[in-house]
Amino acid sequence: MTTLDTPVTGVLREESLRRIDVDDGYVQLVDYMGAGDLSVVNAARVSFGKRKEVFDDGDAKLIKYLATHKHMSPFRHMQFTFVLHTSEVVCRQLYKHQVGCGYTSGEFRESATVWNEISGRYVEFPPEFHQVEKFRKQHKSNKQASVADEIIDQNDKALKIYQESLAASFAAYQKLLDLGACREQARMVLPVSFMNTLTWTASLEAVANFIKLRDHDGAQLEIRKIALAIHDLVAAICPVSVAALLAPRH
Amino acid sequence: MTTLDTPVTGVLREESLRRIDVDDGYVQLVDYMGAGDLSVVNAARVSFGKRKEVFDDGDAKLIKYLATHKHMSPFRHMQFTFVLHTSEVVCRQLYKHQVGCGYTSGEFRESATVWNEISGRYVEFPPEFHQVEKFRKQHKSNKQASVADEIIDQNDKALKIYQESLAASFAAYQKLLDLGACREQARMVLPVSFMNTLTWTASLEAVANFIKLRDHDGAQLEIRKIALAIHDLVAAICPVSVAALLAPRH
Amino acid sequence: MTTLDTPVTGVLREESLRRIDVDDGYVQLVDYMGAGDLSVVNAARVSFGKRKEVFDDGDAKLIKYLATHKHMSPFRHMQFTFVLHTSEVVCRQLYKHQVGCGYTSGEFRESATVWNEISGRYVEFPPEFHQVEKFRKQHKSNKQASVADEIIDQNDKALKIYQESLAASFAAYQKLLDLGACREQARMVLPVSFMNTLTWTASLEAVANFIKLRDHDGAQLEIRKIALAIHDLVAAICPVSVAALLAPRH
Amino acid sequence: MTTLDTPVTGVLREESLRRIDVDDGYVQLVDYMGAGDLSVVNAARVSFGKRKEVFDDGDAKLIKYLATHKHMSPFRHMQFTFVLHTSEVVCRQLYKHQVGCGYTSGEFRESATVWNEISGRYVEFPPEFHQVEKFRKQHKSNKQASVADEIIDQNDKALKIYQESLAASFAAYQKLLDLGACREQARMVLPVSFMNTLTWTASLEAVANFIKLRDHDGAQLEIRKIALAIHDLVAAICPVSVAALLAPRH
Repeated sequence: MTTLDTPVTGVLREESLRRIDVDDGYVQLVDYMGAGDLSVVNAARVSFGKRKEVFDDGDAKLIKYLATHKHMSPFRHMQFTFVLHTSEVVCRQLYKHQVGCGYTSGEFRESATVWNEISGRYVEFPPEFHQVEKFRKQHKSNKQASVADEIIDQNDKALKIYQESLAASFAAYQKLLDLGACREQARMVLPVSFMNTLTWTASLEAVANFIKLRDHDGAQLEIRKIALAIHDLVAAICPVSVAALLAPRH
Repeated sequence: MTTLDTPVTGVLREESLRRIDVDDGYVQLVDYMGAGDLSVVNAARVSFGKRKEVFDDGDAKLIKYLATHKHMSPFRHMQFTFVLHTSEVVCRQLYKHQVGCGYTSGEFRESATVWNEISGRYVEFPPEFHQVEKFRKQHKSNKQASVADEIIDQNDKALKIYQESLAASFAAYQKLLDLGACREQARMVLPVSFMNTLTWTASLEAVANFIKLRDHDGAQLEIRKIALAIHDLVAAICPVSVAALLAPRH
Repeated sequence: MTTLDTPVTGVLREESLRRIDVDDGYVQLVDYMGAGDLSVVNAARVSFGKRKEVFDDGDAKLIKYLATHKHMSPFRHMQFTFVLHTSEVVCRQLYKHQVGCGYTSGEFRESATVWNEISGRYVEFPPEFHQVEKFRKQHKSNKQASVADEIIDQNDKALKIYQESLAASFAAYQKLLDLGACREQARMVLPVSFMNTLTWTASLEAVANFIKLRDHDGAQLEIRKIALAIHDLVAAICPVSVAALLAPRH
Repeated sequence: MTTLDTPVTGVLREESLRRIDVDDGYVQLVDYMGAGDLSVVNAARVSFGKRKEVFDDGDAKLIKYLATHKHMSPFRHMQFTFVLHTSEVVCRQLYKHQVGCGYTSGEFRESATVWNEISGRYVEFPPEFHQVEKFRKQHKSNKQASVADEIIDQNDKALKIYQESLAASFAAYQKLLDLGACREQARMVLPVSFMNTLTWTASLEAVANFIKLRDHDGAQLEIRKIALAIHDLVAAICPVSVAALLAPRH
């Protein structure tokens, strides 16, 4: 078992390095399996019947060859488990990555009480929503995108509208519950900015695909920051493979 | 190609049979591939080098054997494509089925404009949200569930709260856009009840798994109705396989 | 590559067009789902609530955009079912493609008799193995590859060794059965060149991945020919998508 | 089934415990990720924002609930990497499990030399094939199966035929290489009993599916023994989950 206390080839020794805060959420690497770049070459050379313990230049060459020629199976044995805490709007982007990964999410925190009850515990949650600090301007030509550095003129006014809208939605939710409505219908008024927590387990190949697809200009800034955090956590463990998989043009 | 105009073994000849309305959305079977139950046995007997054209009792026996002994690969060649129009809350349940299927969803209808522009078209959408008609009572012992037949006493009052909350959220969204805020941040105030449309392609095995998991007492009524609609659309095409895959105890 | 002269979104009307012979086996497209390139753009624009019936320039532009930016989900709704008849050595390469596809293979033809018996039929198979016609020279620098155009000097002698070896192996197999040994152990002496038949169902994305990985200089010539046959069968149905997905550098 | 006497959530401390010999091959657990049964319940309760460190009765109850109601996603975060050394005939069964796992296999050991050369190393392999010790009798009514306890009368004679056939096939392979034939064609004469080594990484859910499908009367004895070995290695790490997932009737 690879516990994170036992460094393998990586440099991820400090507990504090394992969690990266993003906006008002976080990405935490809670576990990983494999000896980093060494695992990739050991899988590729499995027929030799010998597992290497020290990574050398020939191994780096082999990893580049594998990535360039899209021999991806050796990249599927390094596995990572993250806990992400972020808004549902961002979670949805993650749900869309199906290949080579699995995730378990709460829905609304309330719904998690089903596990609560089965195991005889009970926890109450305060409402929690994504907090915007600065509203970015709409991109002129790309209707889906924002302009990263430009804040709208009336940011304070927008923040007030935002906060009041979230508060009003949550108040409506509570009023519906007070009238005896079931949670599964009442929650329909809640905003998509509610915070969710999910466990995401993905292979090195799947992680690299996610980063490639989400770390670029057209992606929503919030998801892009998560992609960057995931990159930093994983690149600390298998730097050669991550660089090879993210190299342009293959 | 199996177009739905050309009956294979199925009975799905009428256009009207292909779409089933659920609540304020719908499930539409837009295409399928394979000759129903015959495809399953033809796949299982692929080594014989001969494809049967008529389904008989021996074939029914074989399908039961395959399902009971969990030889699932022959059920992966029948494929179905559905278009679903339903609230995002329900779509989320569908995103959680990863195995043997793929889906493409709009996000908010606004975001679909990126395709619009690339292909030189432009369409505007009116806001659309899930409409509740009757608020069901909260289940006493199961905190996640509702009571299907019991409507809350003050249903009219609840409906008013619901409608006003949705309207207020959408008004806040528009105000944020008017202030120049980007869509990707402004939409954070929109409720999870916004209507989404998605294309879902799944194998017969994946469809049966979905129905098994979602058509039961504990499931949200809205998703359960979708599972039933999908069941009816698929059972019309491969009745023997659907019955065998959904039989209790395997 | 040659393409078949069938209409882009139309039905493959001629049975003969759907099957391409390769070496001593074949690739047969037995079914497909979707309206070719139109299905891709209809999935991408699912939020619009309208399905297009005619493919135009804007659609071609959209498909290029999707492929270049790796928005792959719209390519997962076109599905193809092939029956391949080829040697087990080649089948093994196909088994390695896991993502977005499913397959059902016979094992040895004998083992297919389990289905036989369940459904009350019985068929006997003659032994069948891959026939080599020309032995290619070993590639000098790439130990895994052959030289496509260079035949060894003593081809006749090699063919004789080859045939005799296959015949001897099969004779040993039969002797073991005659001694009462079970099939599952006796078959251990059979050569990997035994012919297998399999049903392979794959999405357009998965098919393109397969072609990309197998149609290149380093691939075994036999598998490369299968990749080319699959290319021709699929490109006849969705030429724009296939070209976009196989374009170099993304 | 025997279980290994290692602590439930602890580290497999003894190298020797991690490898189980089967016939003339072996199954080795080379790595795993997660804290056993605790990982399952921590994933299921991810919304609570707290990871438990001690497993209690409520957790066991929750795991049974998850397995019975087929909430499988929490079982996808425990991951295991095995190295298997066994005959290609048995490997083929493993290739057929696609969902929730990835594998990297050598092909013929010779072909592994491509990695050799890229990384500047070279290793030669002696020929290695599966060794039969006792030929089991063919099952009377099930044409695919053997009778586990009954050895054929002329076992010695059968063994001689077997060994001579393998030796003759390998000799033919070498003669073809001596004539200059490429490896990829020459190997066509090699028997399916050649020994292969592969790295298999699979989630707890995928491992349980594999065991369920392969550990039963109808399965080939050689693959069944591998399923049992995998069971013992995994049950030592997450006994509650393995028992729940393999319980009859769900």
